[in-house]
Amino acid sequence: MELYHGDILYSESSKKLKIFENSYIAVENGKVEGIYTSLPEKFAGADVIDHGRGLIIPAFSDLHVHASQFIQRGIGMDLLLNDWLNTYTFPQESHFAEEEYAEPIYEAYVRDMIRHGTFHASIFTTIHRSSADILYKKLEEKGLWALVGKVNMDFQSPSYLCETTEESLRETEIFLDEHSNSSTVKPILTPRFAPTCSRELLWRLGKLGKKYRTGVQTHIVESRWEAAESCRLFPDCRSDSNIYEEAGLLGNGPSIFAHFIFPTEDDIRVMNEYGCFAVHCPEATNNVIAGIMGVHKLQEQDIHIALGSDIGAGVKNGIYRQCAAAIKLSKLKEFYEPEEAKTIDITNAFFLATKAGGSVFGKIGTFEPGYIFNALVIDGIEDENHPMSPEQRLERFCYAGDDRNIVSRYLNGKPIAVD
Amino acid sequence: MELYHGDILYSESSKKLKIFENSYIAVENGKVEGIYTSLPEKFAGADVIDHGRGLIIPAFSDLHVHASQFIQRGIGMDLLLNDWLNTYTFPQESHFAEEEYAEPIYEAYVRDMIRHGTFHASIFTTIHRSSADILYKKLEEKGLWALVGKVNMDFQSPSYLCETTEESLRETEIFLDEHSNSSTVKPILTPRFAPTCSRELLWRLGKLGKKYRTGVQTHIVESRWEAAESCRLFPDCRSDSNIYEEAGLLGNGPSIFAHFIFPTEDDIRVMNEYGCFAVHCPEATNNVIAGIMGVHKLQEQDIHIALGSDIGAGVKNGIYRQCAAAIKLSKLKEFYEPEEAKTIDITNAFFLATKAGGSVFGKIGTFEPGYIFNALVIDGIEDENHPMSPEQRLERFCYAGDDRNIVSRYLNGKPIAVD
Repeated sequence: MELYHGDILYSESSKKLKIFENSYIAVENGKVEGIYTSLPEKFAGADVIDHGRGLIIPAFSDLHVHASQFIQRGIGMDLLLNDWLNTYTFPQESHFAEEEYAEPIYEAYVRDMIRHGTFHASIFTTIHRSSADILYKKLEEKGLWALVGKVNMDFQSPSYLCETTEESLRETEIFLDEHSNSSTVKPILTPRFAPTCSRELLWRLGKLGKKYRTGVQTHIVESRWEAAESCRLFPDCRSDSNIYEEAGLLGNGPSIFAHFIFPTEDDIRVMNEYGCFAVHCPEATNNVIAGIMGVHKLQEQDIHIALGSDIGAGVKNGIYRQCAAAIKLSKLKEFYEPEEAKTIDITNAFFLATKAGGSVFGKIGTFEPGYIFNALVIDGIEDENHPMSPEQRLERFCYAGDDRNIVSRYLNGKPIAVD
Repeated sequence: MELYHGDILYSESSKKLKIFENSYIAVENGKVEGIYTSLPEKFAGADVIDHGRGLIIPAFSDLHVHASQFIQRGIGMDLLLNDWLNTYTFPQESHFAEEEYAEPIYEAYVRDMIRHGTFHASIFTTIHRSSADILYKKLEEKGLWALVGKVNMDFQSPSYLCETTEESLRETEIFLDEHSNSSTVKPILTPRFAPTCSRELLWRLGKLGKKYRTGVQTHIVESRWEAAESCRLFPDCRSDSNIYEEAGLLGNGPSIFAHFIFPTEDDIRVMNEYGCFAVHCPEATNNVIAGIMGVHKLQEQDIHIALGSDIGAGVKNGIYRQCAAAIKLSKLKEFYEPEEAKTIDITNAFFLATKAGGSVFGKIGTFEPGYIFNALVIDGIEDENHPMSPEQRLERFCYAGDDRNIVSRYLNGKPIAVD
């Protein structure tokens, strides 16, 4: 049993933060046992790790990130999606054919995610299985929670970053097979998006999904261009999401759809029917995609939403940054589309970043009893002689904080170092 | 004569960066003497301070910031302007009546601006002259360039933050008088905005402006509420800007108008006629004001534009952050108002942050010969084995960098320490 003292804060729902100031959290076998406002008799004499006025919060979940694009962050941000892909991203990803190129980038990415308090992530690599394996092992070694996808692209892709359909399926099956026994890191099917996947590929990936009980991640209605192109390529499908439904890719595990900015009614139907996640990546969406997810409206339609960094369209790890970015974009959406949209608040944004995103990985993302104690201690937020409430400290951290404010990290109940 | 070696980058115009890789900048009596791609004979034997691959750029100018709100940064960001003013800002500013309250906040603000590379700023304090004096002295002691305003509010303001007209004028004149001999720090008239100033006050401030040859800073058409309210209060004036024109406040020194989001044709006329600056504060505007300045269109109308942090509606010092935020907002504006707006690029944003903003303070903001060498060295941007061009490093710094990437600072040609 470990005991931690501080100001404890987590999400109960999108509308409610639970806050226990000057309290104790008891952790047993890596899981939360309970929270106590004073130390109960049963813990008398136990060692307490005292974080003072440190804010103890759940670690963050990043539901959409391209680890392979970590090296590109903050470059070419003045382009729109299609140009950005062809100018920077596709050429850069092609180098992941070489393990020696991939290894230091994946190493740097994993260190950086830990540094920024992201302990759970749904990750795109590239089409290259052997380098995807490298990332997979690094995540396992660190004991993080992740879904890792070898990307599929067999169509309308540059020759230097394109597989044959058979190759793509064979490599994917080896990847699923090799990693069928893993614990907190699992494989996930990752067709890049409909514009770069043949029908044959998607439908046969659906069969693999059923065989291996494996979920899927991709990009759905992320831009007007992508939405139109997907519908052009699959004219018999009722929506971008329906392509994956028809292919048999949904319902085999988590379905994680990045961006989801321009949904049709049928997209909403599919999301509801399969309990899919729509991943809001506000910084990335702003940088290269253009358009704003309607978070509030989707929540009213009972869509599960989480947050993503979407590195390299997003520029940095740190889902706390995305909390602030999500609030900012929701304000602009309400400004421009007052009938459609409503501003979200910090309580809602933090819920998306922790409890909502964490639910994909199991009992992750809050401090209710039985949840894994993956936690961060946030400090150095207040100015001298100007104490702030826990909620204010959370808000300032999300808006103006950085990794220096994460003063301790706990993974599975144990301290984890940044190196 | 001092010589610095590195990758030198500055703005020539909104359309052109000047880049000298692996070059030398010669500085004499605090001013740029010239830039050399190799060391000329005349400097043979001179000591060179070598910044290696460090990017040597001009220090930033922040043309709109409330130093008194530094303590509020990142709090209450889910409110809109009017609520945010009444809930947080006005009560907090009232404490600046006490010098003991003001002193540590202004001290922290000045340290933080240096840390983030802002060496020139146009600053709001509060209505309290004696605490404004404290900030003034701190800026002078550090040798920074600044315009500092004692705020005027005699109307429609909460009783705890309101002056009589006579008191406001008397205190302002003392402030102007006391600081008439200063060098790089100068006073500026600072009526908060039309909704909190009586006609009597504004017109008599205009007389003070003429007497002391002092410019003016205020908020103009910053939100639909503010624009409408100003027009309601001054029905005989043709625009928000025309109020200040009629009051005699323009043309006595720099005229610096924050936000400028909803200009009428008459506002544009005034701006052109008096060479006023419109200050774009993209983060702040997004946070509490709602609406996006049309940078590209205003530039086509020959309006001078610069950038501002607008702390505390903005959350942090660092005008490099505002470069990225300005680009992001311009993309959203183009997305929502394609007929009206155009995306700006990093070359343009960096120009606003340095050469455009700096011009208010004299020969500041570029490295052309004769300009003051107020400079930053940016490093730690590149990943190992992945060299980036100077322009890419600038972009990544603006999007994903922080104060740790500012590895050296030069003020008036001398190193300045962060403490």
